[in-house]
Amino acid sequence: MPAAAEMLVEPPFERSPAPDDFQSAPDPQKHDHFIREAVDTIINEAVYKGTNRESRVVEWLSPDELSARLDLSLDRTGLSQEKLLSLVEQTIRYSVKPGHPYFVNQLFSSVDPYGLVGQWLGDALNPSVYTYEVAPVFTLMEETVLGEMRAVVGFPREGGDGIFCPGGSMANGYAISCARHYKAPHLKTQGMSGQRRMVVFTSEDAHYSIKKMAVLQGFGSDNVRLVKTDARGRMDARDLEAQVKDTLDQGALPIMVSATSGTTVLGAFDPLEEIYDVCAKYEMWMHVDAAWGGGALLSRRHRHLLKGIERADSVTWNPHKMLAAPQQCSTFLTRHASVLTDAHAANAAYLFQKDKFYDTSYDTGDKHLQCGRRADVLKFWFMWKAKGTDGLEAHIDKLFDNATYFKNMISERPGFELVLEQPECTNICFWYVPASLRSAEARSHPDYNHTLHKVAPKMKERMIQKGSLMVTYQPLRDLPNFFRLVLQNSSLDHKDMDYIIEELERLGSDL
Amino acid sequence: MPAAAEMLVEPPFERSPAPDDFQSAPDPQKHDHFIREAVDTIINEAVYKGTNRESRVVEWLSPDELSARLDLSLDRTGLSQEKLLSLVEQTIRYSVKPGHPYFVNQLFSSVDPYGLVGQWLGDALNPSVYTYEVAPVFTLMEETVLGEMRAVVGFPREGGDGIFCPGGSMANGYAISCARHYKAPHLKTQGMSGQRRMVVFTSEDAHYSIKKMAVLQGFGSDNVRLVKTDARGRMDARDLEAQVKDTLDQGALPIMVSATSGTTVLGAFDPLEEIYDVCAKYEMWMHVDAAWGGGALLSRRHRHLLKGIERADSVTWNPHKMLAAPQQCSTFLTRHASVLTDAHAANAAYLFQKDKFYDTSYDTGDKHLQCGRRADVLKFWFMWKAKGTDGLEAHIDKLFDNATYFKNMISERPGFELVLEQPECTNICFWYVPASLRSAEARSHPDYNHTLHKVAPKMKERMIQKGSLMVTYQPLRDLPNFFRLVLQNSSLDHKDMDYIIEELERLGSDL
Repeated sequence: MPAAAEMLVEPPFERSPAPDDFQSAPDPQKHDHFIREAVDTIINEAVYKGTNRESRVVEWLSPDELSARLDLSLDRTGLSQEKLLSLVEQTIRYSVKPGHPYFVNQLFSSVDPYGLVGQWLGDALNPSVYTYEVAPVFTLMEETVLGEMRAVVGFPREGGDGIFCPGGSMANGYAISCARHYKAPHLKTQGMSGQRRMVVFTSEDAHYSIKKMAVLQGFGSDNVRLVKTDARGRMDARDLEAQVKDTLDQGALPIMVSATSGTTVLGAFDPLEEIYDVCAKYEMWMHVDAAWGGGALLSRRHRHLLKGIERADSVTWNPHKMLAAPQQCSTFLTRHASVLTDAHAANAAYLFQKDKFYDTSYDTGDKHLQCGRRADVLKFWFMWKAKGTDGLEAHIDKLFDNATYFKNMISERPGFELVLEQPECTNICFWYVPASLRSAEARSHPDYNHTLHKVAPKMKERMIQKGSLMVTYQPLRDLPNFFRLVLQNSSLDHKDMDYIIEELERLGSDL
Repeated sequence: MPAAAEMLVEPPFERSPAPDDFQSAPDPQKHDHFIREAVDTIINEAVYKGTNRESRVVEWLSPDELSARLDLSLDRTGLSQEKLLSLVEQTIRYSVKPGHPYFVNQLFSSVDPYGLVGQWLGDALNPSVYTYEVAPVFTLMEETVLGEMRAVVGFPREGGDGIFCPGGSMANGYAISCARHYKAPHLKTQGMSGQRRMVVFTSEDAHYSIKKMAVLQGFGSDNVRLVKTDARGRMDARDLEAQVKDTLDQGALPIMVSATSGTTVLGAFDPLEEIYDVCAKYEMWMHVDAAWGGGALLSRRHRHLLKGIERADSVTWNPHKMLAAPQQCSTFLTRHASVLTDAHAANAAYLFQKDKFYDTSYDTGDKHLQCGRRADVLKFWFMWKAKGTDGLEAHIDKLFDNATYFKNMISERPGFELVLEQPECTNICFWYVPASLRSAEARSHPDYNHTLHKVAPKMKERMIQKGSLMVTYQPLRDLPNFFRLVLQNSSLDHKDMDYIIEELERLGSDL
């Protein structure tokens, strides 16, 4: 690789004349044609072609092949605008298209037109949101959107608090941090060393971020206790209580339960009212990780799935998941007015000066762990303005309608077997069983599960090589690999569901 | 406020027909005209006009006035595209313009044309970077750029590791987490409760994120010891060693020093070689927070400021600061190959399947705390491709040249007084002393400092109301409020420095 850094070691050096296009500002003379050409390519190739059913979801290359095809290396000399435009094209060409209707692979997808414009606008303004002084519009916009989201959750509109944060994992981390501070504020200065052991509870199907963030925050993974789930993947409140009692018997302090509304794999909704009762009884912070399922709150038809969420102390809700806002748009919401600030504020005098000429209660940055921070609110606010709550509701309802249709279709179809007969969310988990494995004899063979375990990876390889579909698979506990279709793109319809089913048959029937 | 959420309570409800434009996908028929109109407005108003010297840096409105002028509220019904375009215009109008040449207020600025195109491209592709499967281009791009940055630091090109993370605060948090895991890997499972107290060292002028992240991670703020700085704001290595000894005498474990290359206020560069010696002697992790000053590594003229950084265990370096990449672009770099993964991996089976058809060592997401994650690499890679290392170097050299010019000009000018006679970085800290305070009598008055303390806030209010300039002020220890000019926009030249000086005189001479 030609190393850009190689000549940086020490003077004396030969200095070439400064390049003529190095300045960090747009110059209409130098850049206008380039910017507009680039935008045109982006709109045509990434936005339209990348989301068109006639295009491939991915043009697959192995790491070695891709390295050979796309010159990623950095050099001392810059490239011409013409070459840069060709890099724009190549980047689009070899990238996976999460906005493609047949990308049903993960808990994010879509390229929402209004979200995209909101994002582009934010980029052009390049703000950092920590004080009203430098981000007046986005400061007020955040409070408006977070207030509205708290109202949707059922929290008091006034009096709670909330933040935008870089992803659901971080939002869940804020929950742990707030719970700890609420229970033991002296730890902010003293730390956990020499203190009573603290324990966090979540279900065995919860997102891995609870454990990851508890490790980061000094709890240790042994102190994240995984509560059993029932046959539908929902937290068993009796097992929760038993584990809390056991924790107390050990002399440790149970501080928090993280319930999940929409688990990552099965899409299960934990029984929030039962969990609330346990939390209330043992004085634990109740957090709901609704990163995925939170979108359903905007649907009058489906918000019953999160019944009881209004009793929680805090909620993670990612508009970039079910509501299809662009990456990233994650929120942490709490009914408590001051805990975010109390737990995190550092009162840096250089940034949060108290002698400014305006009301510095609008300088909201100190409750965040981040200092500089993007205005992730803008894209979501713009989508909400464009569609209205009615539009967001129609979006959610269509996702659930597609999920129901898909589930009904495959429940009758030879070769498809549902993991859950009654999935609750817009994840549908199922096995595709090739013809060769459908006989009673094949099914009773001791290697059946082992063989079935290998089917989904093989089909996944084929769909990616072909570029016709992306749907993920995974094992769960002792279950062999199964597919998980995830729907959050509301431009899909029943015909697309039919296509996905038929394409899976084309990919797997001969296995 | 009309509450979008109000009708969400319970059925029975009246359902209005679904709006006709709610889907999360671009439709050329419905959206093409809107998208192109919006982009045109964004380019003309935010990119060009927002960075033009003839425009205002900010059109100031108080929170109440802004709320009255810009309708942020969310409603059940969506808006027409025409109204949305007007919201685009209003958002631009009332936002501060960090890309404006006279925004010299913070450690970020500029709207780099190539960075912007890179950002827009990333938005249109809407990726999440955790597996090669869904982000092939960005996975390889990250490794290329991080490898190049490690080479620039002087780390071994092969064998180290690095990540993009959401801001320098988080990057510093990764350093603490890695240091702890390196010293005491058993804490990952066991947690800090019942363990020996651990202590982190940084200077009294270091960024507040060290304390904030240490609090988050269970150390407690009492266990962040602030080392004295010398007259130039640089960490005093003798005081460091004394405090380390004291910590050991107390029976606690010193685990890490976070040195700073380019402090937030004074722009000081800590003496890395001396600090390294103390770290080596007491077996502490040496971290360098070069979030701000790291850009100087790309200049053969100025990289001596960070001499010794190549000995560190880890480095925070934010290209969105001195290199003027768009927000956010932050990296954490380490010479250790496995510590990021060892400290953070959770091995989620649903995402990091080991039975994929490609080499899953390219699935790099598990070393991050975030799960879903934006491709912040793209904009910076694209800038580096466009300008080459020579262009980035020319950018850095111009910033330092402007800083030197500004410093020289004000050191001769009546009314201006430097806080540091020899600033090392592109922050220039100074007082503006109005004519009324310049006499020997005024200076010897017991209230002099108190009176001077109020000058900068008043001038700041005036410049914001006028929209002519944004430069921040702050106190430091017992020093009264002083201005801090920060340069990272390389489109500024000596004439702009003259303008800033003259504008400060216009704003403050009568005080």
